[in-house]
Amino acid sequence: MKNKVNRQLDEKLMDQLNYQPFQGAAIGHPVKQRVAPKVRVSTGEDKLVDSLEDVVKKTVKDGMTISFHHHFRNGDFVFNKVMRIIIDLGIKNLTLAPSSLTGVMNELVIEGIKKGAITNITSSGMRGSLGDFISHGNLENPVIFRSHGGRARAIENGEIKIDVAFLGVPNADRLGNANGRFGDAVFGSLGYALMDAQYADQVVLITDNIVPYPNTPASIKQTQVDYVVKVDKVGDPDKIGSGATRFTKDPKELRIAEMVNRVIVNSSYFKNDFSFQTGSGGAALAVTRYLRQSMIDNGIKASFALGGITKPTTDLLKEGLVRRVMDVQDFDKGAADSMHSNPNQQEIDASWYADADNKGAMVDQLDVVILSALEIDTKFNVNVMTGSDGVIRGAVGGHQDAATAKLTIICAPLVRGRIATVTPDVTTIVTPGESVDVLVTEVGIAINPKRTDLIKILSQVPGLPIYTIEELQQLAQKQVGTPKPLEYQDKVVALIEYRDGSIIDQVKQIKD
Amino acid sequence: MKNKVNRQLDEKLMDQLNYQPFQGAAIGHPVKQRVAPKVRVSTGEDKLVDSLEDVVKKTVKDGMTISFHHHFRNGDFVFNKVMRIIIDLGIKNLTLAPSSLTGVMNELVIEGIKKGAITNITSSGMRGSLGDFISHGNLENPVIFRSHGGRARAIENGEIKIDVAFLGVPNADRLGNANGRFGDAVFGSLGYALMDAQYADQVVLITDNIVPYPNTPASIKQTQVDYVVKVDKVGDPDKIGSGATRFTKDPKELRIAEMVNRVIVNSSYFKNDFSFQTGSGGAALAVTRYLRQSMIDNGIKASFALGGITKPTTDLLKEGLVRRVMDVQDFDKGAADSMHSNPNQQEIDASWYADADNKGAMVDQLDVVILSALEIDTKFNVNVMTGSDGVIRGAVGGHQDAATAKLTIICAPLVRGRIATVTPDVTTIVTPGESVDVLVTEVGIAINPKRTDLIKILSQVPGLPIYTIEELQQLAQKQVGTPKPLEYQDKVVALIEYRDGSIIDQVKQIKD
Repeated sequence: MKNKVNRQLDEKLMDQLNYQPFQGAAIGHPVKQRVAPKVRVSTGEDKLVDSLEDVVKKTVKDGMTISFHHHFRNGDFVFNKVMRIIIDLGIKNLTLAPSSLTGVMNELVIEGIKKGAITNITSSGMRGSLGDFISHGNLENPVIFRSHGGRARAIENGEIKIDVAFLGVPNADRLGNANGRFGDAVFGSLGYALMDAQYADQVVLITDNIVPYPNTPASIKQTQVDYVVKVDKVGDPDKIGSGATRFTKDPKELRIAEMVNRVIVNSSYFKNDFSFQTGSGGAALAVTRYLRQSMIDNGIKASFALGGITKPTTDLLKEGLVRRVMDVQDFDKGAADSMHSNPNQQEIDASWYADADNKGAMVDQLDVVILSALEIDTKFNVNVMTGSDGVIRGAVGGHQDAATAKLTIICAPLVRGRIATVTPDVTTIVTPGESVDVLVTEVGIAINPKRTDLIKILSQVPGLPIYTIEELQQLAQKQVGTPKPLEYQDKVVALIEYRDGSIIDQVKQIKD
Repeated sequence: MKNKVNRQLDEKLMDQLNYQPFQGAAIGHPVKQRVAPKVRVSTGEDKLVDSLEDVVKKTVKDGMTISFHHHFRNGDFVFNKVMRIIIDLGIKNLTLAPSSLTGVMNELVIEGIKKGAITNITSSGMRGSLGDFISHGNLENPVIFRSHGGRARAIENGEIKIDVAFLGVPNADRLGNANGRFGDAVFGSLGYALMDAQYADQVVLITDNIVPYPNTPASIKQTQVDYVVKVDKVGDPDKIGSGATRFTKDPKELRIAEMVNRVIVNSSYFKNDFSFQTGSGGAALAVTRYLRQSMIDNGIKASFALGGITKPTTDLLKEGLVRRVMDVQDFDKGAADSMHSNPNQQEIDASWYADADNKGAMVDQLDVVILSALEIDTKFNVNVMTGSDGVIRGAVGGHQDAATAKLTIICAPLVRGRIATVTPDVTTIVTPGESVDVLVTEVGIAINPKRTDLIKILSQVPGLPIYTIEELQQLAQKQVGTPKPLEYQDKVVALIEYRDGSIIDQVKQIKD
């Protein structure tokens, strides 16, 4: 069985898991029945407890689906606390359904799998030792990778049914009103976790900071919460943000960023009330800086900036160059801090951000998005999931979701070390080429041939080097040569869902 | 069949509608399966249309349940616009399920019933010509009256399944992000309407004020909205608020308010971090003023004020005497205006406010509430639904819900004109006596005998006149005599749900 992007899929597995092959990025107007949680009624009782172990015993049973959010990123203390208890209690056959898995969780996920506590995983991504462990076939069932919007969709239509959500928060009152904005371990928007709070049958908040009742703003509400557990520390503030958002001095990144900005500024989308998502990382931050200057120079203001938010973006808000920041997660402390001082920085949940089966998500309104790539191929398909060695070391994140923007720009270096970024065929397809409009590398740009409008406009920009994607691929190949084809074993270790729930690619066990 | 408060219920009707008799105010810890709407997927399309008629044609079919909110109160232009179209299109057999019905809607509801457009109604209340019309048996099926919390519960568990919600808002963007805080027809909190927005299959926003995208704060979100209809005017600002909130000069009201305040201040609940709900009306506003002074004099600050909010309450917030205002609706423009200037005035939905089948509603946390009564009887049962003539002219509102407070005070004059307020048996029971702690009238107070603690404490307050409820009833009877017993016909014209969904009383057709 091959799907629309020509990927061979394991027919038996597809049948068994009731999956359809990817058939294109269009969503249409299906009518979808949403699901809702079971609620154990509580009338006024205090929910504050101090033993996490007691709560795990009361809530988690063999075979359940449990969830976590990844807003603490590598500063997360919550996941390991809970998983330690689960493993030690001998609970088995859980499905792990976090919004994503960060490196700090790897060790206990691996231990959980080895001891039979975890038998299924769905996540946005995974990296390091866990990606390696999964890629070597050590989990019986395939991991299901979903985009942030795809996870929201799957939760809302019941494909992910969360029995217990363990949600770390930097503050909560005794009944469970909580937000991400105050306390030691602030991370700003609770965007991904809001799905779990709304849809899980049982919701356990874990915090190091009990505040007076009632706590507002209540991103998570007492009506959604069963237990509030007080612990010493929920996270390491220094490791939550991606650190100081310094302007890159890497000349390659600066060159890419400057070219991305020229593509944007010369497109038809760069006009008053345009919208954009830039993301994090050196080049993306640099784009924001160039874009700022272009907006000032041209007297242009944006209607909104979307996505994972960084301080350079909230600075645009403060400056009045952006009217609203629609914030599903904050990548640094500056962006998190801005949230409680600027009412125009609106917290949005993952559904509002990007659920494809919605009455309209923010990504549907996006004019311009800048995304990264581990690999991009001559069909403009993008891989952000596996390395060129076939090992899982990435995350879908919002990549597929935001790529629905009117102008989707992938920025990536032509090669990384001895490895080509632009390839004849990416190792794993996460985002289909039909969603991608322009690739920007340090040597020049390539425009998706179907975007004849962009080719026409951008060809007139003096000094903007335009190549075909095949030319860029050849250039890369010239630099680093042709790699040996990867060899795989038969076992499928992961399935990559497209944002509509179809399968866009599979990842097979690597050969040692 | 008699229920716990000794009311005779029509057994056949109870069976037919699958109702249980009221068995007591305790809620317990049942596990409840929530329901969820069907969503017609929309990816980025503009939702703005200018023909309300087209939208009604597209969305409303015979036999459906349609809903409205009553936040515009008697300034509402939305209900009549929609109902006019529905009647003229000849649509039949609708169930009308608004958060409540205000007088300005009466005429078209009656016309809708006469023409077969409306065959079922559930509401918080009704008054004037409509109450009279229903009380005379002119609707085939009984009206179901529910409290604000009861409606939220019924929507969340599927007893009310809204097919189309028509929600008027003072602002919205082209995709349906909206709030109640800006525009000509502001009313502040959208608390009741948030239930409809979340649970209705189809949501139609109606506004006179299209604002730039994206509109924040988004009390109603684009993910919930199918159509945005632009009309000339959604409401009459002058009739939305209850007008200037002047301090009453009525000596009877002042005497009641002063006594209510003494009851509160001398109770064990008057201490730092206490919470209260006062409501609107002359006496209630006066209570807020007395309470303010007592708080200042005693150095006491409240954790939160709840409920329908008035300017005197938001003034307490501004002054720092109240830490949070938890706001499900605003009774005047002052309270509505305060909402967008004070982040500590938190908008809450009707579920968070008062759903009994919740993981904890605000009313469960309430220390003190002051409520009104049309009648109160010697069992402390309260009627806020029918006049002493048996005609429907009231609303359950939040009465049953807030009466779950630790100290529930009913304030009412002993008699109104030639009619006793304190009676041997109320005409219709809305709130059971077991929820009521103290009655305050202008001649003195009566304490529920089961509250021996309050009797002990309040008996020591110098100059506070304490009677038994029977004594107050006798005093009232002496003033106005004994009325002739009411005569009814057999037909049940309305059922009063308790907040848990059981039936606490029925209303029969009156005899002319």
